[in-house]
Amino acid sequence: MTAKPSVGKLSAPLVEALVQDAETLRLAVDRTATGARIVDAGIAVRGGLEAGRRIIEICLGGLGRATFQSDVRFKRWGQAVHVTTADPVIACLGSQYAGWSLSEGDFFALGSGPGRALAAKETLYEELAYKDASDSAALVLEVDKRPPDTLIAQIAKDCGVAEDKLTLILTPTSSLAGTVQVVGRVLEVALHKAHTIHFPLERIVDGFGTAPVPPPGADFLTAMGRTNDAVLYGGEIALYVEGPEDEAEQLANGLPSSTSRDHGRPFGEVFAGYNYDFYACDAGLFSPALVTVTALSTGKSFTAGAYEPALIERSFGG
Amino acid sequence: MTAKPSVGKLSAPLVEALVQDAETLRLAVDRTATGARIVDAGIAVRGGLEAGRRIIEICLGGLGRATFQSDVRFKRWGQAVHVTTADPVIACLGSQYAGWSLSEGDFFALGSGPGRALAAKETLYEELAYKDASDSAALVLEVDKRPPDTLIAQIAKDCGVAEDKLTLILTPTSSLAGTVQVVGRVLEVALHKAHTIHFPLERIVDGFGTAPVPPPGADFLTAMGRTNDAVLYGGEIALYVEGPEDEAEQLANGLPSSTSRDHGRPFGEVFAGYNYDFYACDAGLFSPALVTVTALSTGKSFTAGAYEPALIERSFGG
Amino acid sequence: MTAKPSVGKLSAPLVEALVQDAETLRLAVDRTATGARIVDAGIAVRGGLEAGRRIIEICLGGLGRATFQSDVRFKRWGQAVHVTTADPVIACLGSQYAGWSLSEGDFFALGSGPGRALAAKETLYEELAYKDASDSAALVLEVDKRPPDTLIAQIAKDCGVAEDKLTLILTPTSSLAGTVQVVGRVLEVALHKAHTIHFPLERIVDGFGTAPVPPPGADFLTAMGRTNDAVLYGGEIALYVEGPEDEAEQLANGLPSSTSRDHGRPFGEVFAGYNYDFYACDAGLFSPALVTVTALSTGKSFTAGAYEPALIERSFGG
Repeated sequence: MTAKPSVGKLSAPLVEALVQDAETLRLAVDRTATGARIVDAGIAVRGGLEAGRRIIEICLGGLGRATFQSDVRFKRWGQAVHVTTADPVIACLGSQYAGWSLSEGDFFALGSGPGRALAAKETLYEELAYKDASDSAALVLEVDKRPPDTLIAQIAKDCGVAEDKLTLILTPTSSLAGTVQVVGRVLEVALHKAHTIHFPLERIVDGFGTAPVPPPGADFLTAMGRTNDAVLYGGEIALYVEGPEDEAEQLANGLPSSTSRDHGRPFGEVFAGYNYDFYACDAGLFSPALVTVTALSTGKSFTAGAYEPALIERSFGG
Repeated sequence: MTAKPSVGKLSAPLVEALVQDAETLRLAVDRTATGARIVDAGIAVRGGLEAGRRIIEICLGGLGRATFQSDVRFKRWGQAVHVTTADPVIACLGSQYAGWSLSEGDFFALGSGPGRALAAKETLYEELAYKDASDSAALVLEVDKRPPDTLIAQIAKDCGVAEDKLTLILTPTSSLAGTVQVVGRVLEVALHKAHTIHFPLERIVDGFGTAPVPPPGADFLTAMGRTNDAVLYGGEIALYVEGPEDEAEQLANGLPSSTSRDHGRPFGEVFAGYNYDFYACDAGLFSPALVTVTALSTGKSFTAGAYEPALIERSFGG
Repeated sequence: MTAKPSVGKLSAPLVEALVQDAETLRLAVDRTATGARIVDAGIAVRGGLEAGRRIIEICLGGLGRATFQSDVRFKRWGQAVHVTTADPVIACLGSQYAGWSLSEGDFFALGSGPGRALAAKETLYEELAYKDASDSAALVLEVDKRPPDTLIAQIAKDCGVAEDKLTLILTPTSSLAGTVQVVGRVLEVALHKAHTIHFPLERIVDGFGTAPVPPPGADFLTAMGRTNDAVLYGGEIALYVEGPEDEAEQLANGLPSSTSRDHGRPFGEVFAGYNYDFYACDAGLFSPALVTVTALSTGKSFTAGAYEPALIERSFGG
């Protein structure tokens, strides 16, 4: 295997640009007493869609692009996020996936973004055979309050960077930036599910994804419901994979959200049905609606799943 | 209110890049006797679609992006301009809106772009509580001849910049660049109409817009008709607003061009019907066809208006 | 005629960026014994869609943009390449067209990209009245093996550059990058056919194009078939031209692939039907499916041709 790109180094200029343009993007930048940088992307400030788009590109470790596109797939919801990457496994699983559990006292968050690959706390990194080295670290937290300073210090330590080289970007689920950065995970959730159903990650060569941008929910639960529904019922991805054709077909059939027992209702209803216990929801639900997998070995493509426009309307329009 | 971004400073690098790339973009750059820079984007030179796209981004004061996108909404007219901004009120009303009356003798033009915010001659700037400060100024004029030198000198004076720091970009309505830069106003016209119907501008948080690129009209009237029709009958926008839900609903219902008594005919016919008196046309006509407004306070969205494909075909295909 | 832009100089930074980002883009960069640079974009390495997109922009001589866009025109094939240029004739015919025959022994390739305009070996350059001057040269070869070193030395000589200033980018037809860079020719094939049917090139002012990205074929013939079908049956372009309206109409009617006797079957079948003799195929087949030509002199547009979704499905889904 050739050397892998450093998501920390590739994303560092994007983090600096975000901070540089904070006033324009309506973000607030602050430092903790011990020097870590906190970017508020929607708690005390407005932030916006464009801030969210840039945060997706930071989450992708500088290995991907997120673009806003006019979208005709769902009436009334005329803008989508389109995601492409130069290396989907490293970009999405090695960086973007929200997989690092960060907690102290009653604070809890899942860290996503390039800093994860420095700490490499998750077993996923062994499977990826990937650990990053970089002088600076950035993490995105989908939270509406600042983590305790002691936790922030620990994160810097785990990342192996000086505290003043750590940037935490806070994106509340119900903010515009938060909404955008979640639906920008449309390709990532597909890769994560591919991993869960044991498709060998090293065989995933390329891919892309699209998901509609929902109107932000006014409260956390509605916002969470809509961003999930954007992917589950409105998301589309393609993957290009190596290996036998029948395994590509199995992957396509196993990927879409329609394979889940929980498919068919807006995510908010599913979640309420499990008494708001996220881990009681079927993990298989978290995947795009429509999936095409191409077996590069034979050139054959397999498509499974479907958009659910009625569910999108019920969720976004509710 | 936090400090607002400087549309003059943010757009200055884009203006320099336009001049730098003039040969590639087929623009002509000249200076007046007293040093002001004139960029011809379609009078004696060809210019082109890409020049128009860049001019939109200058008009937006460096606060927005304009991208060309493949568009399937209207048969035969396969490309749209999609506009996003980091701050729609400042970008569109504080900069892009063609609101500065410039006249001398028989020359008349409406100045648009970042230079407006330096001169701040319009009462709109009081309502925006915005006045820019910048060493350089740029204005876009939708004209097919150069303004008199004495008027140019006056513009520099009003902007408070040295004359050699003023750039005027001339985009005839019937040029490719002129066509593109007008339809790039799809979001701006919605904001302007929101202002006209007294929606508080400070409540408008974010938005985006899309409009098809019409074939340029061969003469001024046809060109003007088509660029207006692209917005009135083919334009779509979304706004995200603060405040009570019912006011968001009223905004949505009040915005689309269909609210106007003049809706339903190509703009060229409307204009002719008023004996080519622009100010006799119902101001309420100048708005996108399809509008969605989301009340961030409750997460509820309201959609009003509709595309008019038959009118688009009659206008563009005529 | 004004001075024309240098496709060599405009594309040189894009070539350097490609080499700089080789690890990220999964490209291999090597040098011949005598110093020429070879970029492998899919022979011994994975490359990818993004590498292909960048190679399109190099092929366009730095005069155009290629963007990936979510595409709803063809079920299952959800991503298209959209191409715009600042100067379509120079970008597409002066640079992108694969028109330079390069052969030695049993090696044969058609060189495309900015280096062609330095060597200007083709009679086309007389008609374009264009010859580039640049210190460095880049050519794209749609091949799956490296050209002989002696041929490479000859190419540098023909381009008039030192051998260490020559970059050859190799994109096998069945690679992801190769697939993308071929469908990125959707506008170029239209310009080439316009030339073939004797439309004066100097009258072509602007244009754009879109084509779906097919799944790469596993072998050369399938890959070649699909990339051609993407353009012939799924490609759309628009041209804006000067001159009399009736000549614009003739151009529109003469351009689409449907004008060809060979239209109506996947290209792979056509090719097999001629015993894999490329030059036996009707040259008129190589053109987009759907074409709109606007006569700038009158503002009238003419549309001809149609998408062929069933043929796209048969080709891509086979």
